[in-house]
Amino acid sequence: MKEILVLHGPNLNLLGSREPQVYGSMTLEEINRRLMAEGERLGIKVRCFQSNAEGALIDQLHEARGWAAGVIFNPGGYTHTSVALRDAVAAIGIPVIEVHLSNVEAREEFRQRSLISAVCWGKISGLGWKSYWLALHAFALRFQEDEMR
Amino acid sequence: MKEILVLHGPNLNLLGSREPQVYGSMTLEEINRRLMAEGERLGIKVRCFQSNAEGALIDQLHEARGWAAGVIFNPGGYTHTSVALRDAVAAIGIPVIEVHLSNVEAREEFRQRSLISAVCWGKISGLGWKSYWLALHAFALRFQEDEMR
Amino acid sequence: MKEILVLHGPNLNLLGSREPQVYGSMTLEEINRRLMAEGERLGIKVRCFQSNAEGALIDQLHEARGWAAGVIFNPGGYTHTSVALRDAVAAIGIPVIEVHLSNVEAREEFRQRSLISAVCWGKISGLGWKSYWLALHAFALRFQEDEMR
Amino acid sequence: MKEILVLHGPNLNLLGSREPQVYGSMTLEEINRRLMAEGERLGIKVRCFQSNAEGALIDQLHEARGWAAGVIFNPGGYTHTSVALRDAVAAIGIPVIEVHLSNVEAREEFRQRSLISAVCWGKISGLGWKSYWLALHAFALRFQEDEMR
Amino acid sequence: MKEILVLHGPNLNLLGSREPQVYGSMTLEEINRRLMAEGERLGIKVRCFQSNAEGALIDQLHEARGWAAGVIFNPGGYTHTSVALRDAVAAIGIPVIEVHLSNVEAREEFRQRSLISAVCWGKISGLGWKSYWLALHAFALRFQEDEMR
Amino acid sequence: MKEILVLHGPNLNLLGSREPQVYGSMTLEEINRRLMAEGERLGIKVRCFQSNAEGALIDQLHEARGWAAGVIFNPGGYTHTSVALRDAVAAIGIPVIEVHLSNVEAREEFRQRSLISAVCWGKISGLGWKSYWLALHAFALRFQEDEMR
Amino acid sequence: MKEILVLHGPNLNLLGSREPQVYGSMTLEEINRRLMAEGERLGIKVRCFQSNAEGALIDQLHEARGWAAGVIFNPGGYTHTSVALRDAVAAIGIPVIEVHLSNVEAREEFRQRSLISAVCWGKISGLGWKSYWLALHAFALRFQEDEMR
Amino acid sequence: MKEILVLHGPNLNLLGSREPQVYGSMTLEEINRRLMAEGERLGIKVRCFQSNAEGALIDQLHEARGWAAGVIFNPGGYTHTSVALRDAVAAIGIPVIEVHLSNVEAREEFRQRSLISAVCWGKISGLGWKSYWLALHAFALRFQEDEMR
Amino acid sequence: MKEILVLHGPNLNLLGSREPQVYGSMTLEEINRRLMAEGERLGIKVRCFQSNAEGALIDQLHEARGWAAGVIFNPGGYTHTSVALRDAVAAIGIPVIEVHLSNVEAREEFRQRSLISAVCWGKISGLGWKSYWLALHAFALRFQEDEMR
Amino acid sequence: MKEILVLHGPNLNLLGSREPQVYGSMTLEEINRRLMAEGERLGIKVRCFQSNAEGALIDQLHEARGWAAGVIFNPGGYTHTSVALRDAVAAIGIPVIEVHLSNVEAREEFRQRSLISAVCWGKISGLGWKSYWLALHAFALRFQEDEMR
Amino acid sequence: MKEILVLHGPNLNLLGSREPQVYGSMTLEEINRRLMAEGERLGIKVRCFQSNAEGALIDQLHEARGWAAGVIFNPGGYTHTSVALRDAVAAIGIPVIEVHLSNVEAREEFRQRSLISAVCWGKISGLGWKSYWLALHAFALRFQEDEMR
Amino acid sequence: MKEILVLHGPNLNLLGSREPQVYGSMTLEEINRRLMAEGERLGIKVRCFQSNAEGALIDQLHEARGWAAGVIFNPGGYTHTSVALRDAVAAIGIPVIEVHLSNVEAREEFRQRSLISAVCWGKISGLGWKSYWLALHAFALRFQEDEMR
Repeated sequence: MKEILVLHGPNLNLLGSREPQVYGSMTLEEINRRLMAEGERLGIKVRCFQSNAEGALIDQLHEARGWAAGVIFNPGGYTHTSVALRDAVAAIGIPVIEVHLSNVEAREEFRQRSLISAVCWGKISGLGWKSYWLALHAFALRFQEDEMR
Repeated sequence: MKEILVLHGPNLNLLGSREPQVYGSMTLEEINRRLMAEGERLGIKVRCFQSNAEGALIDQLHEARGWAAGVIFNPGGYTHTSVALRDAVAAIGIPVIEVHLSNVEAREEFRQRSLISAVCWGKISGLGWKSYWLALHAFALRFQEDEMR
Repeated sequence: MKEILVLHGPNLNLLGSREPQVYGSMTLEEINRRLMAEGERLGIKVRCFQSNAEGALIDQLHEARGWAAGVIFNPGGYTHTSVALRDAVAAIGIPVIEVHLSNVEAREEFRQRSLISAVCWGKISGLGWKSYWLALHAFALRFQEDEMR
Repeated sequence: MKEILVLHGPNLNLLGSREPQVYGSMTLEEINRRLMAEGERLGIKVRCFQSNAEGALIDQLHEARGWAAGVIFNPGGYTHTSVALRDAVAAIGIPVIEVHLSNVEAREEFRQRSLISAVCWGKISGLGWKSYWLALHAFALRFQEDEMR
Repeated sequence: MKEILVLHGPNLNLLGSREPQVYGSMTLEEINRRLMAEGERLGIKVRCFQSNAEGALIDQLHEARGWAAGVIFNPGGYTHTSVALRDAVAAIGIPVIEVHLSNVEAREEFRQRSLISAVCWGKISGLGWKSYWLALHAFALRFQEDEMR
Repeated sequence: MKEILVLHGPNLNLLGSREPQVYGSMTLEEINRRLMAEGERLGIKVRCFQSNAEGALIDQLHEARGWAAGVIFNPGGYTHTSVALRDAVAAIGIPVIEVHLSNVEAREEFRQRSLISAVCWGKISGLGWKSYWLALHAFALRFQEDEMR
Repeated sequence: MKEILVLHGPNLNLLGSREPQVYGSMTLEEINRRLMAEGERLGIKVRCFQSNAEGALIDQLHEARGWAAGVIFNPGGYTHTSVALRDAVAAIGIPVIEVHLSNVEAREEFRQRSLISAVCWGKISGLGWKSYWLALHAFALRFQEDEMR
Repeated sequence: MKEILVLHGPNLNLLGSREPQVYGSMTLEEINRRLMAEGERLGIKVRCFQSNAEGALIDQLHEARGWAAGVIFNPGGYTHTSVALRDAVAAIGIPVIEVHLSNVEAREEFRQRSLISAVCWGKISGLGWKSYWLALHAFALRFQEDEMR
Repeated sequence: MKEILVLHGPNLNLLGSREPQVYGSMTLEEINRRLMAEGERLGIKVRCFQSNAEGALIDQLHEARGWAAGVIFNPGGYTHTSVALRDAVAAIGIPVIEVHLSNVEAREEFRQRSLISAVCWGKISGLGWKSYWLALHAFALRFQEDEMR
Repeated sequence: MKEILVLHGPNLNLLGSREPQVYGSMTLEEINRRLMAEGERLGIKVRCFQSNAEGALIDQLHEARGWAAGVIFNPGGYTHTSVALRDAVAAIGIPVIEVHLSNVEAREEFRQRSLISAVCWGKISGLGWKSYWLALHAFALRFQEDEMR
Repeated sequence: MKEILVLHGPNLNLLGSREPQVYGSMTLEEINRRLMAEGERLGIKVRCFQSNAEGALIDQLHEARGWAAGVIFNPGGYTHTSVALRDAVAAIGIPVIEVHLSNVEAREEFRQRSLISAVCWGKISGLGWKSYWLALHAFALRFQEDEMR
Repeated sequence: MKEILVLHGPNLNLLGSREPQVYGSMTLEEINRRLMAEGERLGIKVRCFQSNAEGALIDQLHEARGWAAGVIFNPGGYTHTSVALRDAVAAIGIPVIEVHLSNVEAREEFRQRSLISAVCWGKISGLGWKSYWLALHAFALRFQEDEMR
C-alpha cells in the first residue's frame, strides 16, 4: 500500500481561527481527517505532520525518503524565503506537490515568488482544503499510471 | 445540468507532436475526450475550445457568461503577457481555474509571472493532462458544496 | 466634413455590466450614441468600432488613414502590452488621443506604463464617458485652429 | 455659483517664452484669461494661482477646501517628485484634475511616473492650453450631472 | 525543390509609406517580388504571408510544418511581447531566421529585448530589405551543406 | 531647563479633519498642547512649529542649533523625497527622533523608504499621537542618563 | 491585570558582549529586569522570552493568543527575511510593537526592508533599551484609553 | 560688464560649521568674498544668493534671465530630487555650471544621480571652494572666446 | 591545543546519496573523519556538528565562543537567506571560513548572493570535500603565524 | 577596388578547438580564407585581423578610417562590456556590421546586451561562419546600390 | 618643480575629426600644447600620454607614482566599465582629477555611472578643452595651498 | 612533472605598497617565491605571470593550453567586468581556481559579481597570500586523486 506524507508548514496549526476570510473556517484536523478518509477510499495511507520550524520540516522530508511514495507540501510562509527547504525537496527524490489554501498570486508582491515550485512535480493553489484533496487524487492517478506501465 | 468551458490557448493544438518531453505525448483531442467522459460521470457538461488568437479567446470568455458555471483555462503563452485576457477573466464573473501542463516555474524567467492568476479562483500546474482533470473535479466539489448550502 | 474614428479595445463591449464600480454603468452603445450626437452638433462625423482582437484594431487604424482626421482610441488592456499597436499609431500619421474610462494610474502596477501614450497627441483618463466626450471636443478645437491658420 | 481653482506649478510663469517647441507660445496670462472667460460662459467662477514653491502650492490646496468645488492642477516638475503634494490632494476631499501642456510620457524616463495621478479624479495631457480648457468642461459636465441627481 | 515561408508581422503591410526614414521606401510587394525572383535563381520556392494578427501568424507557423524547409520571420512589434509566437517557433521544429529592417537595438529601450531570438537559428537586422535577402541566402547555403553531408 | 523642538511637516496642519481613519481625529493643536503639558511635567520646555514648506522646515532645524537639546520631527511627505532635509538633520548635530502618526510601512511602496531615518537618533511610528508623546519621554530618559554620567 | 509578552529574536541572548558599539553594553537580563519592574509600576505583568529559532518564536506568538494583551517583539535578523513570522503576527490578532535597539535604517541595504512592520501596530527603533521601555509605555497608554472608552 | 549669479542651495549657509571633514572649514561668506574679488580681477561682476527653499532658488534662476550671462549653481540636496529646478535651468537659456564642494560620487547611493547635470553646460565637483573658483574661470574663458568670434 | 568547529548546515546530512553529480559521493561522516584525522596531524582538535535548523546552527556558533579558535562553516541553503546567521557569525568574534562543496556561482541566480561572506575571514568553494580540508589548513597556517608574532 | 576589414575579437583565435558544440569546428584561418576567396569573386579586397586586446582592436578600427569601405566586426566577449569599442565604431564613420557565430541571445543573461549594436549598420548572428559570409554580401549589395545612385 | 601627468584614454587620439558636434574641433595635440604652455606659466611641468589600451593606461598610472604630483585623467569609454582603472587610481596615492570634454550625463544611460569618480579628488566635465585647463589650475591652487601650510 | 600557471591580474604588481590594510604587506615577488618553493616540495612546477592588460592575460591563458595542468588565477579588477576573460577560461579546458587576497564580498556592491567564477573549478578568497597557497594544495590533492584512479 502506497503512503503519502502531508506536510503543513508554519501557522497552519491556527487554521479555522486565523483570518477565516483568507484561509477558510475549516481546522487543520478536519482537513487531515478528510485526507485520511479519502486516502483510505483510494488505497493510499496518508500521514500528516505540521511544524512551525523550518528545520523540523526539512527533517520530515528527509525521513520521508524511507517510506513515502509522494509528498503533499504546504510550505506556508517558507514558500517565498527558504532555499534550504527547496534543497530538501530536490534532494529526496520523491514527487512533491506544492499546495496553498489561498490564491497567493492575488496577495502581496513578496508572495509572488515560490522558491519551492521549480523542484516540485506540480502545484495546486487557491482552492482551499480542496487544494490538498486534489493533490491526493493526483497521486492516486499517478500510482495508477505507474501500475499500468 | 452545470456546464463547464475548457479553453485552450495558443499552440495547444500541437499537443502530442510538440516537444513531448515538455508537454507529454497525449493529443488535445484525447485530453478533451477524457474531460468530456469524466464530466459525464460527474454530471457536468464539458465544452472545449482552442484558439491561437488572443481576441478569439476573449470572445469565448465573454460568451461563456451566458451559459457556463465555470471555466478551465490554459492561457499558454498569453499567461505572461496578456492584460486583455486578465481583464476578460475579471469581467465575466464566473470562477476560472488556470491550468498548465508543464511546471512553468521550472522554466524561463519570463514564465515566472502570470498576469491571469490573481483574478482566478485557483491554479493547477505541472501535472500534465491531470491538471485539467483535477480542475474538473474542483468544480464538481464546488458545485456539491453550493448545493449543500 | 471631418471624420473621426472612435476605436474601442478589448472587453469594452461589456461596458455597463462589467465591474460598474470601476467602469461605470453606461453601455458602449450609449457612449457611441452620445459621441455621434455631439459630433453632429460640432460638425464632425463620428464612426465607432470595437474589437477584442489586437490585429483587428491595427487593421482599423491602417484603414483610418484613408478617411479619418483624428482617432479617439481606448486600447484597454493592450495599452500596457502592445508594441504592435504603438507602431500602428505611429505609422498612420493621424493625430490620436488615448482615452481611458478609469484612472489607470490608481490601479495595479502593470497598468502604470502605457506603450501607446508616447506616440499620441494627448491623453485623457479617469473621467468615465466624459473622457471620450472631451477628446471629441479637443479635435473640434483643433480643427477650428487649423481652419484659422 | 461653483468656483474652480486653477493651480499652476513651477516654471509655468515662464510660459510663452520658455521652450515654445515643447510648451507652445501662449502665455500663462492668456491661458488664465481664456479659462475665466469660458468659465463665465459655463457659469463657473475661475480663480488662478501660480507658484514655484511646493509649500505655497500645498497652502493653496488647503485653502481651496473652504471655497472650491474643483481644482485644475498642473504640478509641473513636482508631478514626479512630491509626496507632500499628493498628500495634500488626497487630504482636501475636492475633485482634482491633473493637467499637462506637453505629452509627458513622450519625454524623459523620470517624467513617466506621476505621484499625483492616483489621487486625482482624472488627467488630461499633451493638448497644450486645451488640456486646461477641457478640464474646465469636465467640471461643467460633472456639476450638471450632480444637479440632475 | 525546397520551400521557404517568408512571414511578415504587424504594420509591415504599410512599408514604403510608413516612416520611410526608419523603414526605407520599398514596398512589401517589391521585397516579396525580389525574394521570389532570387529564390527562383537559387532553386528555392518562396511563399510570402503578412498579417497584423498574432493568432494568424501562429497559424501560419503551424501550417508551415507541413511544407516549409525554413522560415524567414519579421515579427515586427510582436518581437518584444509575444511568448505565444516564441512558443510557436520552438514548437514547429523548422529552422527560423528572425529579420528586421531597422536596427532595433538603436531604438527605444523596450525594443532591446527579443522574445523570439533565443529559439531561432539566427538573426539579421538593420540592413533594410537586404536583411530578408541575406536570410534567403543563409538557407541556400544551409541546404547546400545538408546535401553535401 | 532643556528645550525640545517639535517640528511638523506638510499637511499636518489638517490633522483631525484629514482622513481620520488614517491619521486619527485629534487636531495638531491638541497634540501640541499635550506635549507641552507633559513636557512641563518632565521639566522640558516644548516648542512646536508646523510648515508645508521644505525650506521653512530646514530653516527651523538650522535655528534649533542655537537653543534645542533635541528635535521631534514628523517630516510627513518629505520623509521619502527630501535629501535637503536629511542634510539639515545631519548638519545640526542635535539628536533627532523621526515620528509618524500612521504605520507608513503598511502603506504605498513609495512610503517604504525614509531618507531621514539614517541620520536620526531613532524612529517611532504607527502609534498616533502617542508616537510624539513617547519621543518626548525618550528625550527625558536621555537627559536623565546624561546627567548621571 | 494585563499581561505583555516581550519576545527577543536571534542573537539577542549575546547582548552586552556582542558588538557593544552597535547594540550597547546592557545585557538582556538587565533589560528584562527593567521592563518587569517598570511593568509592575504600570500595573502590567511582563513575561520575557528569547530564542534563536524562528519556529520557537512563532510558537510563542501563537501561545500568546491565550493570555497576552500585547507583544513587544524584536525579531532581530528575522525582521528582514521571515514571511512566516509576519504571518504569525498577522494571525494572532493581538497588537504587536516591533522594536530594535539599533537604527537599522542606518545600516546595510538588506536591513532596510522589514517584513514584520506592515502587520504591527507600530515600531520603535534606534533608542537602545529605551526602545523596549517606550513600547511598554505605549501599551500602558493604550490600555488606559481602552478603559476610558 | 558681464554678470554672473552664484546660487547656493540648501544647508550651504551652514558652511564652515557643518561637518567640516566633508565640506571644509571655509564659510559661505568667505567663498562669496573670494569669488567677488576674483570676478573683479577678471572683469566679471559676481552676485551671490543662498536659500534653503526650492521655490526661491527657482525664482532666482528666473530673474537671472534679465541680467546674468552665466550661473554657478550648487543645488545641494536638491541636486538629486528636483525636477522643478532642472526645468528652471533648462528654461532660462543661460549657461549654468553645476558645482559641488564634496565628491558626491564617493558618497551615498542616492547622491549618484543628478537631475540637474544633463541640462547644464558643465559640472565641477569635489574640489571644495575651488569648484566655484574654477567655474568662474570657465565663464571668463568662455566670454573671451565669445568676444574673439 | 587549538580547537576548530566544523559546522554543517541543512541537507548536508544527506551527502553521498543526494544528487552526487552536484555534491560528490562522499558521505558527511567520511568528510568529518578525514578532517579529524588531518586535524590530529596538524595539532588541531576538530569537532563536527550538523543541523537542518537555523536556530540550532546559531546556538552552536554562540557556544563556540567558549572554546573554538576558528569555525569552518558550510551554511548550505541558509547562505543566501539568513541574516540571523550572519549576525551570529559577526557577533562571536572568532574567525570563520565559509565553505561550499559545489561551485555555487555556477548555479541558480538566487544562489549568487551570500549573506554570510562579508562577515567571514574568507571563503572556499567548488572543490568538494577539499574545500573543508583546505579551510582546515588555512587555520593551521594562521595559528602558525599567530605563534610567530 | 573596395576594401573590407574583417575584425575578430578575443578568443576567436581558438576557433575550431574551442567548445565546437557552440562555435563550430571550422578554424579562423578557414573562415578568413573563405571570405577572401568570396571577396575576390565579388570584387572586394578582404583583410583580416584578430586580437585578444581591446586596445589593439580600437587601433585597427582607427586605422581602417584610412582605407576600408566597411568593417565586419565580431567583438566576442567585448560585445557586452566595451564602451570604448562602441565609441571607436561610432567615431570612424565607416559602416560596420556586427557578426556573431553563435546565437548569443540563447545564452547567458549578461550576453543579452550588446553595447556595439546601436552604432552599427546592422547585425548578423547565430549562423556560424555564414554570419561573416552574409555580412560580406551585404557590403557587396550596398556597394552596388551606391554605384547605381 | 611639480610635474603633472595628463592621461588621455581611448579614442581621444581622434579628437578634432571625431564627431566634432560632441567633442569639439580642437585636436589632442592642440590641447596638449595649450596645457604645456599654461603649465609653464604656472610653474608646473605637464607630460601628456594617450592610449587606447586599458593596460597601458594602468601602467602609466603606476609609473606616475615615481614622479607626478597629480594626474589629469580622461578615461573616455573606460570611465563606465573599468574596475581595474579604478583600482589603479586608488592604489597610486596621488590626487587625480577626472575630466571629460562632453557633458556625459546628458548622454546615454550607460554613461551615467563613473567607476572612477569615487576614488578621484574631483571631476570636471562638459567644458570641452577647458575641462583640462581648469583641472591644471585646480592643481596650481592646491600646490599653492600646500606650500602655505 | 605537472606544471601550474599562477596568473596575476591588474594592479597586483603593486602588492606590498598598495593599500596594505586591504591587501597585506607581502610583495608579489614574495608570494611567487613561496608558491614556487611549496610547489617544489609538492612535486609541482609553478610558473608566475602578471599583467595589467586584459589581452595579455587572455594570451597567457591560451598558451597555458600547451603545458599547464592547472591555473591559479587572480583576475583583480577584471573579475567583475570581463566576459572576454571568462570566455578564455571556459575555452582552454584546464581546471582554474579563482583566488582573491581580500574578502571581495565585504567590499563595494560592484565587486559582488564575479563573471569568472561560474566557469572555474573553484574559488578561494579573503585569506591573503594563503589563498594562493591553498589553491596550490588543491591542485596537489587533485593530481593525487587523478593518479589513484
